[in-house]
Amino acid sequence: MPIIEMHLMTGRTVEQKRRVVAAVAEATATALGVDKNTVRILITEHGLDEFAVAGVTAGQKAEMAAAAAATAAGASEAAAKAKSTT
Amino acid sequence: MPIIEMHLMTGRTVEQKRRVVAAVAEATATALGVDKNTVRILITEHGLDEFAVAGVTAGQKAEMAAAAAATAAGASEAAAKAKSTT
Amino acid sequence: MPIIEMHLMTGRTVEQKRRVVAAVAEATATALGVDKNTVRILITEHGLDEFAVAGVTAGQKAEMAAAAAATAAGASEAAAKAKSTT
Amino acid sequence: MPIIEMHLMTGRTVEQKRRVVAAVAEATATALGVDKNTVRILITEHGLDEFAVAGVTAGQKAEMAAAAAATAAGASEAAAKAKSTT
Amino acid sequence: MPIIEMHLMTGRTVEQKRRVVAAVAEATATALGVDKNTVRILITEHGLDEFAVAGVTAGQKAEMAAAAAATAAGASEAAAKAKSTT
Amino acid sequence: MPIIEMHLMTGRTVEQKRRVVAAVAEATATALGVDKNTVRILITEHGLDEFAVAGVTAGQKAEMAAAAAATAAGASEAAAKAKSTT
Repeated sequence: MPIIEMHLMTGRTVEQKRRVVAAVAEATATALGVDKNTVRILITEHGLDEFAVAGVTAGQKAEMAAAAAATAAGASEAAAKAKSTT
Repeated sequence: MPIIEMHLMTGRTVEQKRRVVAAVAEATATALGVDKNTVRILITEHGLDEFAVAGVTAGQKAEMAAAAAATAAGASEAAAKAKSTT
Repeated sequence: MPIIEMHLMTGRTVEQKRRVVAAVAEATATALGVDKNTVRILITEHGLDEFAVAGVTAGQKAEMAAAAAATAAGASEAAAKAKSTT
Repeated sequence: MPIIEMHLMTGRTVEQKRRVVAAVAEATATALGVDKNTVRILITEHGLDEFAVAGVTAGQKAEMAAAAAATAAGASEAAAKAKSTT
Repeated sequence: MPIIEMHLMTGRTVEQKRRVVAAVAEATATALGVDKNTVRILITEHGLDEFAVAGVTAGQKAEMAAAAAATAAGASEAAAKAKSTT
Repeated sequence: MPIIEMHLMTGRTVEQKRRVVAAVAEATATALGVDKNTVRILITEHGLDEFAVAGVTAGQKAEMAAAAAATAAGASEAAAKAKSTT
């Protein structure tokens, strides 16, 4: 029977999906000693705001990281400016 | 572990999704006494004809409600016309 | 309770989805002797490269079938040409 | 492909499970026009406190119904007693 | 994210489960180029009458196979008896 | 609609399950602005060797932790013995 549902973030290429189902079917059949033909895999993709860890979506986390990077960049730019004017 | 799959009708805003996963993660962690970082939430959205109660999809139900409203509107319009012509 | 999740290949018409959920809800309620109103059905659609049997996606299988058909067509065309020139 | 996951309350007999999967496979194959051999069904059973509507589990609901019945029985018994003593 | 749900027939040993999740996590991480620590796997086991192909449960199929084997054994026994008495 | 599937480690008490579904239904209804009666929650429990992070089941992890603790205890006991004999 093995029926496997894989939840992935959207954005994988067709090539990646084909590679991962081939690898997982092979791994499952070998580890359980079953015929690979009995292994079925379903992929469901989830957008950035459809997956959350600790109540924070991947979309929010990306925004926060971008904001932090912008702040850091602004700070170092300001620091560089301050340095150059002294 | 808590891993939570939420099935929602399509159409929620990013804001709503962020709000609901934050609230559910908080509620789960508090009720079970687990670290919020262990809570993962997956949202899957379903279109109007991908959810059914009693064998009738949400799309069908909406159409039937619209048809009933149109019939009722037509009837009251006809009644109003009948009244004004008497 | 019966809550039923149906995984289908993408491409079904709205009409087909309505027909299948009506039939499945009826079948479930009758077979289990429960009120049809308690039956809820969720449909999730999967693209050609989001479903795999034996580690080969439906998309790959379709490509291989098309390639085999093209090869066969080419072969019979070549055979026909060979025949006509003799 | 159709792959169907059925969530049921625990307590169905083997006979009921066999009947429902036969009926659902037949209904699905007919409604979608697919070969019945492509239909796979998975049943997952949930205990009384593993299913909730409106945040109240089936187990709680049963307890509340039993308590209400006991109260009603007690009340009518008290009423009968009061009546017989007058 | 990869979150993977594996549906297996009941009866696998702890050793088999550990082997299959190790192999699948490794295969997934390698094929997608993600950190293995992000891969989470959930196993759900299904009894013989909780999995059906073409509307026939694995339990029914096993019974039918046993019955067919018994019939075949009976037939060859009868044939052997017939032969020995001639 | 919200239909929510919660995957938990086995071992939660009935009390904990009732508490978590009440809290999650409340949180979901409030965050999405839907009637709590439309929220359905399914709990599925997974044993120690039916959940894995990075390909290591919770059962394996517990065994490794116990082994490490035993080694550490043995080491400190040996150290204490060594000390007392000097």
